Amino acid sequence: MKDVASAAGVALKTVSRVVNGEPGVHPGTAERVREAIELLGYSRNESASVLRSGRTATVGLVIEDVADPFYAVLSRAVEDVTTGYGCMLLSGSSSEDPVRERELVGAFCARRVGGLIVVPAGADHSYLRPELEAGTPAVFVDRPPGPGLDVDTVLTDNAGGAGLAVRHLLGHGHTRIAFLGDEPSIFTAARRLHGFRAALGHLFDERLVAMRTPTPAGVRADVDRMLALDAPPTALFTGNGRLTVTALRALAGRLPALVGFDDFELADLLVPGVTVVAQDPAQMGRVAAELLFRRMHGDTGPSEHPLLPVRLIPRGSGELPA
Amino acid sequence: MKDVASAAGVALKTVSRVVNGEPGVHPGTAERVREAIELLGYSRNESASVLRSGRTATVGLVIEDVADPFYAVLSRAVEDVTTGYGCMLLSGSSSEDPVRERELVGAFCARRVGGLIVVPAGADHSYLRPELEAGTPAVFVDRPPGPGLDVDTVLTDNAGGAGLAVRHLLGHGHTRIAFLGDEPSIFTAARRLHGFRAALGHLFDERLVAMRTPTPAGVRADVDRMLALDAPPTALFTGNGRLTVTALRALAGRLPALVGFDDFELADLLVPGVTVVAQDPAQMGRVAAELLFRRMHGDTGPSEHPLLPVRLIPRGSGELPA
Repeated sequence: MKDVASAAGVALKTVSRVVNGEPGVHPGTAERVREAIELLGYSRNESASVLRSGRTATVGLVIEDVADPFYAVLSRAVEDVTTGYGCMLLSGSSSEDPVRERELVGAFCARRVGGLIVVPAGADHSYLRPELEAGTPAVFVDRPPGPGLDVDTVLTDNAGGAGLAVRHLLGHGHTRIAFLGDEPSIFTAARRLHGFRAALGHLFDERLVAMRTPTPAGVRADVDRMLALDAPPTALFTGNGRLTVTALRALAGRLPALVGFDDFELADLLVPGVTVVAQDPAQMGRVAAELLFRRMHGDTGPSEHPLLPVRLIPRGSGELPA
Repeated sequence: MKDVASAAGVALKTVSRVVNGEPGVHPGTAERVREAIELLGYSRNESASVLRSGRTATVGLVIEDVADPFYAVLSRAVEDVTTGYGCMLLSGSSSEDPVRERELVGAFCARRVGGLIVVPAGADHSYLRPELEAGTPAVFVDRPPGPGLDVDTVLTDNAGGAGLAVRHLLGHGHTRIAFLGDEPSIFTAARRLHGFRAALGHLFDERLVAMRTPTPAGVRADVDRMLALDAPPTALFTGNGRLTVTALRALAGRLPALVGFDDFELADLLVPGVTVVAQDPAQMGRVAAELLFRRMHGDTGPSEHPLLPVRLIPRGSGELPA
């Protein structure tokens, strides 16, 4: 701005008035300032207006991993809504690490984001209370916050979706149904186990349950153990997209019936096609972002907790008989 | 900061000194300021230090679409390097729109990013010259900038990869090889056509070339037209991951041999497995980000242009005989 003032031969304050559209500058002078700005390629430093307003037009998004197609699609939907409101997106991947989640949120808040969308990795979010009380709204997505934090959440009907999968397999004659899930400390994994167990009732057998971070070696070991049982499973319910893909590789043709939670590209091109319980990550991102912008625009109503529906897409693997 | 000063009963300047670790404050007074900060939940406003230093610890990333697995993996790699340097990532999707690309770059620069990584959508980047001259480094990834801009680029050996695919198919007896590519205005699509044409030599037949944005209906029309020729193709080279998947659906079993540019999840689980020329989007993101940080840390050497290698992964579809 000093260079502009000097080039236009005016005071710094005059440049500031022109840039901020304030009155009290002679039209000829304003024109000269604008020419100097054009000439020098000066762009308005938005950081300065952030300091004045205390709020930057930026939204902070914490997800688990942007390279995971589920979160990539969710991110894009959040970005599209954010762009529609003329705002920018700061985003970061927590890699399921509560420390990293907190670092990201802290860095976003230090940069004065207007609001936060968080897929939480941790179970304690009391660190967010000062920010919320200072007026930075937050929406939790996919998983709720730890106890004591009254914020909006956008969750999927995880237990209902697991029930849908189990009843579908029961309807095709299966009574030995196994569940491969992610770490039980992950909210969605725990809810899907809950729905699985409730729908199976007295048919539930804990030897047919394995929950862990999906690695090829781990999933293969779980599948091998279950298939070696005296009464092996005839059907498998996999608890998320990564588990489905990893299990398909581990099964290598020894395929009992299978239903997976989460749809994935090419599920229809595999033989047989893979039956899934599909969430809609784009809808989840849109609903969360729209809710956040309502809060950023002053909506102080009670916290909201939409539960997004799922749907079962039969493609072949879930319709194989027992 | 005013609230902290008032709560601690000190001058604003004293609070500033404590927050910025400057000397000249009595230890007892500093302690009182820190207690007031704790009490009020005040977090240091990094925007203020941005204004002082003129550079924020933020990198701006423009990609085509974060929901595309190729760019999702590239984004994650850029984020990991950026995080390693203690910086944050601002990112946005251009959707192949040059106007949107320029808006994103403008918004990032207005937020005083320390550097830019750009997958360009447009062909004219003269708008970037003032930022580059003002000392904001930029690295172009996947595609070069328009003429006249001397910046670092990180590209894939697109023509070489296409040649690899063609020679592989020729080696399995194919002489009628078709190419489905993206819009010829896209750099990578044009380079892959170039490599395809050069490797085929006198066998090149422009009736076996179709280039457009991959939509299911468009790809189906192209495939139908080619298969209805008097001398239909016996092999297909698809120009990117989306085209491969769309073509596999359009072919629906009428599959000649196929090699696709870009690897994709589940390529190994399809029957036959899909032979691909694989790029490494994570490597591309890492190389670009490391190069950018070298520039941000003061390296003013001549612009660099690493060309990343590709490799052919045979899985079955590319080894079917003519």
